[in-house]
Amino acid sequence: MTRTVYVNGDYLPETEATVSIFDRGFLMADGVYEVTSVLGGKLIDFEGHVVRLKRSLDALDMAEPCSRDDLLEIHRKLVELNGIDEGLVYLQVTRGSDGDRDFAFPAADTPPTLVLFTQNKPGLADSPAAKKGAKIISIEDIRWGRRDIKTVQLLYPSMGKMMAKKAGCDDAWMVEDGHVTEGTSNNAYFVKDGVIVTRPLSTEILHGITRKAVLRLASEAQLKIDERLFTIEEAQAADEAFTTSASAFVMPVVEIDGVSLGDGTPGPIARRLREIYLEESVRTAI
Amino acid sequence: MTRTVYVNGDYLPETEATVSIFDRGFLMADGVYEVTSVLGGKLIDFEGHVVRLKRSLDALDMAEPCSRDDLLEIHRKLVELNGIDEGLVYLQVTRGSDGDRDFAFPAADTPPTLVLFTQNKPGLADSPAAKKGAKIISIEDIRWGRRDIKTVQLLYPSMGKMMAKKAGCDDAWMVEDGHVTEGTSNNAYFVKDGVIVTRPLSTEILHGITRKAVLRLASEAQLKIDERLFTIEEAQAADEAFTTSASAFVMPVVEIDGVSLGDGTPGPIARRLREIYLEESVRTAI
Repeated sequence: MTRTVYVNGDYLPETEATVSIFDRGFLMADGVYEVTSVLGGKLIDFEGHVVRLKRSLDALDMAEPCSRDDLLEIHRKLVELNGIDEGLVYLQVTRGSDGDRDFAFPAADTPPTLVLFTQNKPGLADSPAAKKGAKIISIEDIRWGRRDIKTVQLLYPSMGKMMAKKAGCDDAWMVEDGHVTEGTSNNAYFVKDGVIVTRPLSTEILHGITRKAVLRLASEAQLKIDERLFTIEEAQAADEAFTTSASAFVMPVVEIDGVSLGDGTPGPIARRLREIYLEESVRTAI
Repeated sequence: MTRTVYVNGDYLPETEATVSIFDRGFLMADGVYEVTSVLGGKLIDFEGHVVRLKRSLDALDMAEPCSRDDLLEIHRKLVELNGIDEGLVYLQVTRGSDGDRDFAFPAADTPPTLVLFTQNKPGLADSPAAKKGAKIISIEDIRWGRRDIKTVQLLYPSMGKMMAKKAGCDDAWMVEDGHVTEGTSNNAYFVKDGVIVTRPLSTEILHGITRKAVLRLASEAQLKIDERLFTIEEAQAADEAFTTSASAFVMPVVEIDGVSLGDGTPGPIARRLREIYLEESVRTAI
């Protein structure tokens, strides 16, 4: 089945969905994005994504492409048109195109580009990968300094994923000045003696929507949380570890740089948080 | 006049030139570029750009889109079709599209995307901006760590150009750990007591084609060159300063963070190097 995607007001077959070669998203990586999960045909944490999108756009002096209500309508229409029960909706906004290339931003009234498409992922919630847990390698974090803005500058995370694959692993955690920042497309955590440790928010990591929800749920479940810098060695010595992201929810980590965590299977706290998060998400999905 | 541009084998009117929304250049900034100047309808330093393009592609395990001879033919055809006497040819290669979005690279046989277009710039050589000299601000360098690879991750340089504009200046020099790396789209130099100082090549700066040519010509002209780290304060105390780039050649710098250099006009060494570089470039253009 050919997907129907959204480009600047039009619903199009995916094979006909294009942007100008002068689009600043293509020429300058001048764009931001969000990925919203779909479970049971409904959107998970939609409001969180809308708020973060606005934050990214504001940080870059980029115009909002449309209202929250319009975005919701487009998301829902794509989910419906493509018959998505479990999957993702990808959204990208760029500074658009004034028909040429210049480092300077185009005129402020240049219409932004808005692109959305779905990805069908049956079994997203009941994921075999989550039952197995992820094997992680560590790599140096050489990304730019504003990782709190969710830009499409994803070349290095993409390279990191390939380094992990090459090493027979699933993902990479990035390390800067000796401390773990985050995964290539997720926030990173370990658990030691019942305490969940994760890096505090700053410009150095993404302000994960799922991070926020999971920490709230963990706190409600009386789990202790310690937001602080941590090293790979600390995580390797942990009882368990996990990552959070909008598309993989809570993903247990079972190995870091060849060192097995606990008994080498997903830990109880990661499993429990995944369960609680999914329950809560499905309950509040719109 | 509508430009004719090149996209994956086709010569098209610029208004019809598009790429898939799934192109990794658009979704992931997974692409590299080159800009070649045109003077008298001929290409400046074409071989240098081809060599650097290959270096960027190799560094990212990206396929070459076509041969050097094919690239030359496309460059020349675009120059001819668009009647460019003085201007630029922009070239971008991306990892292409396999019709969906994934951090992992698509299959190695996925065809890369190749896009080229011209920009008509009458007066490029005899530039009024070069006669006036550029005013520079300094900003923190927060780009990723592999600036030697000429990727399209240009959001921060673009933001830097806007910061300069807002400050009533022309460009920004970036500073990391107290030392100047380079300009937003050029290499940076100052001259003190007849010695040209510029940062040595590393992964921290672009390996400028024009940098290489200008340093060779400076050396042939018996000028002393000292490749070393330097601070904004040193540059402010210099006799003169300049930048080099493929599109602006040698551009004198007359002010750094509000401090005038020398008598506030383009310095003799910058002017002389611009002259020599342009002479040599026109002589060897193809």
